[in-house]
Amino acid sequence: MKLSQFYIDDIIKKAILEDINYIDAATDYLLDENAETSAYFVSKDQGVLCGIDIAMRVFQLLDDKIEFTLHKHDGDEVSKGDLIAEMRGNAAALLKGERTALNILQHLSGIATATNACVKLIEGTGASVAETRKTLPGLRALQKYAVTVGGGKNHRYNLSDAAMIKDNHIDACGGIKGAVSKFRSKAGHMLKVEVEVRNFDELYEALEAGADVIMLDNMNPEQMTEAVKVINGRAKTEASGNITLNNIAEVAKTGVDVISLGALTHSVKAFDISMKIK
Amino acid sequence: MKLSQFYIDDIIKKAILEDINYIDAATDYLLDENAETSAYFVSKDQGVLCGIDIAMRVFQLLDDKIEFTLHKHDGDEVSKGDLIAEMRGNAAALLKGERTALNILQHLSGIATATNACVKLIEGTGASVAETRKTLPGLRALQKYAVTVGGGKNHRYNLSDAAMIKDNHIDACGGIKGAVSKFRSKAGHMLKVEVEVRNFDELYEALEAGADVIMLDNMNPEQMTEAVKVINGRAKTEASGNITLNNIAEVAKTGVDVISLGALTHSVKAFDISMKIK
Amino acid sequence: MKLSQFYIDDIIKKAILEDINYIDAATDYLLDENAETSAYFVSKDQGVLCGIDIAMRVFQLLDDKIEFTLHKHDGDEVSKGDLIAEMRGNAAALLKGERTALNILQHLSGIATATNACVKLIEGTGASVAETRKTLPGLRALQKYAVTVGGGKNHRYNLSDAAMIKDNHIDACGGIKGAVSKFRSKAGHMLKVEVEVRNFDELYEALEAGADVIMLDNMNPEQMTEAVKVINGRAKTEASGNITLNNIAEVAKTGVDVISLGALTHSVKAFDISMKIK
Amino acid sequence: MKLSQFYIDDIIKKAILEDINYIDAATDYLLDENAETSAYFVSKDQGVLCGIDIAMRVFQLLDDKIEFTLHKHDGDEVSKGDLIAEMRGNAAALLKGERTALNILQHLSGIATATNACVKLIEGTGASVAETRKTLPGLRALQKYAVTVGGGKNHRYNLSDAAMIKDNHIDACGGIKGAVSKFRSKAGHMLKVEVEVRNFDELYEALEAGADVIMLDNMNPEQMTEAVKVINGRAKTEASGNITLNNIAEVAKTGVDVISLGALTHSVKAFDISMKIK
Amino acid sequence: MKLSQFYIDDIIKKAILEDINYIDAATDYLLDENAETSAYFVSKDQGVLCGIDIAMRVFQLLDDKIEFTLHKHDGDEVSKGDLIAEMRGNAAALLKGERTALNILQHLSGIATATNACVKLIEGTGASVAETRKTLPGLRALQKYAVTVGGGKNHRYNLSDAAMIKDNHIDACGGIKGAVSKFRSKAGHMLKVEVEVRNFDELYEALEAGADVIMLDNMNPEQMTEAVKVINGRAKTEASGNITLNNIAEVAKTGVDVISLGALTHSVKAFDISMKIK
Amino acid sequence: MKLSQFYIDDIIKKAILEDINYIDAATDYLLDENAETSAYFVSKDQGVLCGIDIAMRVFQLLDDKIEFTLHKHDGDEVSKGDLIAEMRGNAAALLKGERTALNILQHLSGIATATNACVKLIEGTGASVAETRKTLPGLRALQKYAVTVGGGKNHRYNLSDAAMIKDNHIDACGGIKGAVSKFRSKAGHMLKVEVEVRNFDELYEALEAGADVIMLDNMNPEQMTEAVKVINGRAKTEASGNITLNNIAEVAKTGVDVISLGALTHSVKAFDISMKIK
Repeated sequence: MKLSQFYIDDIIKKAILEDINYIDAATDYLLDENAETSAYFVSKDQGVLCGIDIAMRVFQLLDDKIEFTLHKHDGDEVSKGDLIAEMRGNAAALLKGERTALNILQHLSGIATATNACVKLIEGTGASVAETRKTLPGLRALQKYAVTVGGGKNHRYNLSDAAMIKDNHIDACGGIKGAVSKFRSKAGHMLKVEVEVRNFDELYEALEAGADVIMLDNMNPEQMTEAVKVINGRAKTEASGNITLNNIAEVAKTGVDVISLGALTHSVKAFDISMKIK
Repeated sequence: MKLSQFYIDDIIKKAILEDINYIDAATDYLLDENAETSAYFVSKDQGVLCGIDIAMRVFQLLDDKIEFTLHKHDGDEVSKGDLIAEMRGNAAALLKGERTALNILQHLSGIATATNACVKLIEGTGASVAETRKTLPGLRALQKYAVTVGGGKNHRYNLSDAAMIKDNHIDACGGIKGAVSKFRSKAGHMLKVEVEVRNFDELYEALEAGADVIMLDNMNPEQMTEAVKVINGRAKTEASGNITLNNIAEVAKTGVDVISLGALTHSVKAFDISMKIK
Repeated sequence: MKLSQFYIDDIIKKAILEDINYIDAATDYLLDENAETSAYFVSKDQGVLCGIDIAMRVFQLLDDKIEFTLHKHDGDEVSKGDLIAEMRGNAAALLKGERTALNILQHLSGIATATNACVKLIEGTGASVAETRKTLPGLRALQKYAVTVGGGKNHRYNLSDAAMIKDNHIDACGGIKGAVSKFRSKAGHMLKVEVEVRNFDELYEALEAGADVIMLDNMNPEQMTEAVKVINGRAKTEASGNITLNNIAEVAKTGVDVISLGALTHSVKAFDISMKIK
Repeated sequence: MKLSQFYIDDIIKKAILEDINYIDAATDYLLDENAETSAYFVSKDQGVLCGIDIAMRVFQLLDDKIEFTLHKHDGDEVSKGDLIAEMRGNAAALLKGERTALNILQHLSGIATATNACVKLIEGTGASVAETRKTLPGLRALQKYAVTVGGGKNHRYNLSDAAMIKDNHIDACGGIKGAVSKFRSKAGHMLKVEVEVRNFDELYEALEAGADVIMLDNMNPEQMTEAVKVINGRAKTEASGNITLNNIAEVAKTGVDVISLGALTHSVKAFDISMKIK
Repeated sequence: MKLSQFYIDDIIKKAILEDINYIDAATDYLLDENAETSAYFVSKDQGVLCGIDIAMRVFQLLDDKIEFTLHKHDGDEVSKGDLIAEMRGNAAALLKGERTALNILQHLSGIATATNACVKLIEGTGASVAETRKTLPGLRALQKYAVTVGGGKNHRYNLSDAAMIKDNHIDACGGIKGAVSKFRSKAGHMLKVEVEVRNFDELYEALEAGADVIMLDNMNPEQMTEAVKVINGRAKTEASGNITLNNIAEVAKTGVDVISLGALTHSVKAFDISMKIK
Repeated sequence: MKLSQFYIDDIIKKAILEDINYIDAATDYLLDENAETSAYFVSKDQGVLCGIDIAMRVFQLLDDKIEFTLHKHDGDEVSKGDLIAEMRGNAAALLKGERTALNILQHLSGIATATNACVKLIEGTGASVAETRKTLPGLRALQKYAVTVGGGKNHRYNLSDAAMIKDNHIDACGGIKGAVSKFRSKAGHMLKVEVEVRNFDELYEALEAGADVIMLDNMNPEQMTEAVKVINGRAKTEASGNITLNNIAEVAKTGVDVISLGALTHSVKAFDISMKIK
């Protein structure tokens, strides 16, 4: 996986401490502390798996002798009943890690699955699917990773690494051209500038200002089609606002380059996966 | 609010660092760093507000001179168009905090709203609504708080503060009675024991074992009604598994004391709120 | 051991940084950095060992090639002169870790030993020994663990996982019944309620209110015996306040279920153990 | 106070999180969240107060509007019944902070009181009382501070800031002279060297080696008197090992400069202080 | 300032703990703990000031009643003897914070001054000065900020927010075109791509591949002039490698857009500033 | 190495997060995630190596299967072209760690090299070279370590472990004698006292006061020679202020014991080392 192991570990440790704090009363009082067992993860739904390495890491942070075999990997499609992974080792560690492992795995698989549903709906168009900055506190890296596993492409990571120029920035600089030009005069050469436009006047101004990307904010498909035609490759185009599974295909057909959806990360439906002890 | 301020602050700071990291390129390069402005939060949906104090704290951690007036508080019902809060102060700080504040506010209001929908559906029955341990990593305290704001009652916080005895614990102790009795012999007097039962044999055994709470796992309404009758107040009852807005009223009518839903925290739909700059 | 390894590691690392900070000047300047040696822990007193795995972990965090053999384990009785553990490996690491390892081991063994002395004095009665929330900052989990190793049973871990209703809560709610009933209406079904009573009027009210546990605060043995008789199994009973090795047997004979002692964790006498280099 | 506020705050926050974690169930469910009250700390014993600023800080970290008046300060002698401090403000915050504040205050006052008892016993001699590195994990700075409040003087803070040369160091360097000389050749000019000696041969060698301080390890008073005479001011002298309230006066009369006692920090008896709500 | 206050605070607290750890022995033992005094910062050199707000914050974190007046701000030119800031308040806090405040202020002013020297040398050309990723561990944000204060423009912040394609990436993809095209197919639309080229063949390939920025690696001025002519605005150009105060003007005249220097952050000469107590 | 591994690891992890944050876009998108390669570090300059174990640790924290062979160790002299270390393993991990590893290695080798240049210039005199407290925030332990690797001896680590008495302390105590005597009455027996003197009157007073070390502040060589003669071994002597490679030999010949230079740590020139992929 691409994320740093120690970064992942910090999130896992925090989650385990939340879930265990002191001891797992039921498990620590009732199980033989050296008992071993086997367990497995099985899919209860259809979708794209994401987070299986992280889930396995949960168990290993509780007992580094836990062994596992992966039958599915991040990015694999899984169906109801599919065996995802088998684990073997200390029974108490497997029980203690179950909830934390599943909480992460189900959330990330939920994101990957939802992203993938969007990706499939726009296959064949030139558009890509992206998440937004509407992520949950502390989980941005994991959530963005899940979007890529589902076939999406990441929008900017944070406010430092690219600029989105909005109303308030524009007003403060006396117009789009003023804003873009002030930005270019201060920002480094590695930062892209996206300008949010709500109508064609703004779009023309953004184009003239030399925006790298133009966001077509809450435009309808006809307007977007027209906007893409006007822009004609001089800037990348992004559609955003009120896009759902119902209208994403239509949006993609307008020729926009990127379709971004806040719901991919702010309204995640957990993907159902169970752990069974053999 | 009941949560410790410094605990909240740690979550906010982490979220701000995720979202800003170094600088907010657009805002820091384009706005006069001393410019002041007013802004407000407006509801775009109908539901129960949660997290407004935390959202305001986001702005204050960015600039402790930001002032605000709350028009709605945690627990208030809000409708589309309702003014929630007004903020005034440094324009850059307001813009920089917007996304982080809304991400938290929308997530928590989403939980409170969903919880409240359940609570309303079972009003008049003796049942209460509870979340589960299916929370998102690092967010358990916030999520549990939101459940209470929505009218729910919290299940145990973690594995230390009450025990849920499941199959594997039971198997390791040769039965429910062995498990409960072993637990009582080791655990302190302040820990409650809940036993998960899947049929009436197990239910009888759990009752005899003196379980404080009995979880009726994936039973249908008829079975639950019968189970509640059998238990007859000798233990609290919890219904869990596959409960949705569609069947929760029916479940509540069975007479169970608690209905727990993982979806309240694992599959949250963000509640739509916007920030507008005046 | 039941506590999470990474939780223990954090405490150890903090302690090592306190004790070493930059370097161990004597050891780092005077010993050959690759020299190996053997060392052992020997008991200088009679009591119950606790913390030996944590002590060994101190050395391993300083040098993961340190090997060790345990001759005594947590919970074992040790006598003066008993060999507890043998360690072999890098001499500098053994010297650097000595003080931190012993500081933890001696503190926890002191708690286990004191707890065990209480437990032995009340053997044969139905009472159990518990600690209180009078723990040292940052050390609660370790201290509670040591109480269980000494044969005690843990009281609640923190203010979230069970409620103790005291004067101020009672006054705020217009009486014990009001307090218990308000609590039940808000708290989740997994939280027990203990009520502190100072006389029989309060005791009757607590019983009627349905308290799970009744704390008999600073009652004398005669009163406690009477109280236990009155309660007659309808609630658990806890004796607390001014209990020492001198009177604990007498208190236990009153029939109370739990005897809690703050001194177990707030006034710990270190248990004497030495490290010798062979 | 001399310790950095943010260092203290970190310890307090950690302690509060241990004690509260999520919410204070009794207080948060039963008290009006805006209710105000007054409270005070009263001494239940005779001794030296230590930690009162830290205790007050506990309340302020829970609610920065809490006000207080100190009637006794760190270093003051307090008697049973003495009013120590009065606090006023949010009732819930006062109740939530009570245990954490008292846990710290009682521990530190216990150390200051024990230290002061030693100091008084040796008044008039030239000796001073010092703690050792036998401190509790995470609490070294607080414990050392309490020793000075009780009238003691601090031994070295950690292994970096002065050297104690012991058997193993000496063996590794072929004798005391070799060890001291090797140390001087490597260590900076600001580091003092103390050498532990068990007999007069070692003492002569340490003197000749130019040790800054000589520790007389487990010598009896006659030997110490002789040793002090031999050393005759050429090095500072420290008595250590098996020193108690019973023999400290006798040890001090031998003319040693410093008497160090591990028990001051490793076997602390909490000093009894109560909080009362008015 | 643009950096988050709590981010700055964490760095300061860490630095203070490094410098103080337990107490400031000289100051805490010798000064009246309530004594007040005035102090000021005076420049001992000629250059650009940077970090003065952070330096003042050091004092305020030690004592929040310290007051100060700034005579120079970040970005101001200062000359030898210039009064920079006056502070007034607790004498111990001023002495304790002196070294930490100056260490940060001198380092950042050193960077701003060195950057500014470069900026002045290339004034009138279209080139800008940028730092690289050759920063010191834990100090990247501060160092980058100082570069902007000195008149430079920031290169990318980290490996996530823009891509620099080098030999190894190129080899792995069978050429520059393969690499750029693979990158575009995976990366989000907000990431710029810079390609490092060492000769004209690579330059043509990078141009054709559509690189956003082309780095002219270790080319001589003649080659750079030619390269800029060839590129002709189709990509931004960056000169890097062996650029010093001696040759930067010559490099700038080649027409490159950006000149990056590792030395700005990896080989910083502290700018001399003193604190005087009045 | 003498520094604790987990202390080093924290610095490395923080640096890696600064440099990577989310992903290494170029490497993660372009390289086969399982590709292996070899790489090596080669010196581009002449000097003393320092930090090679830390640099290797960077790679291992990114991938614990990375293997390496060291051809040069900390303290070794290296020349331009010398092979320092060879690494083999996951190609992505090697590329991701390159910059962080080199940033640390080049900084520490720069310090060791500069220190060593000073040490060589004063060889044969009795003087040693020391750094000061003018270190960079968060890097003190690493920087001090590098000074010792270069042949220097460490000055005090922080304000707790030895005292430097300066003007303000002296003024507060009515003179040097008052200050030293007050210090001795409060400080523990393990703390050395250094007094800063600017002229011979102060020097006599410091001597009489019994200072352990006397700092000759900004004296010229003649004055220092005279001062050393006057002191005549009754205290250690330290020369400080305006000492450079040009005058250090002359200063050393005055007979002072220690020469301290702020520039060793506040104005570090990175030592040039490259990583090459085979």
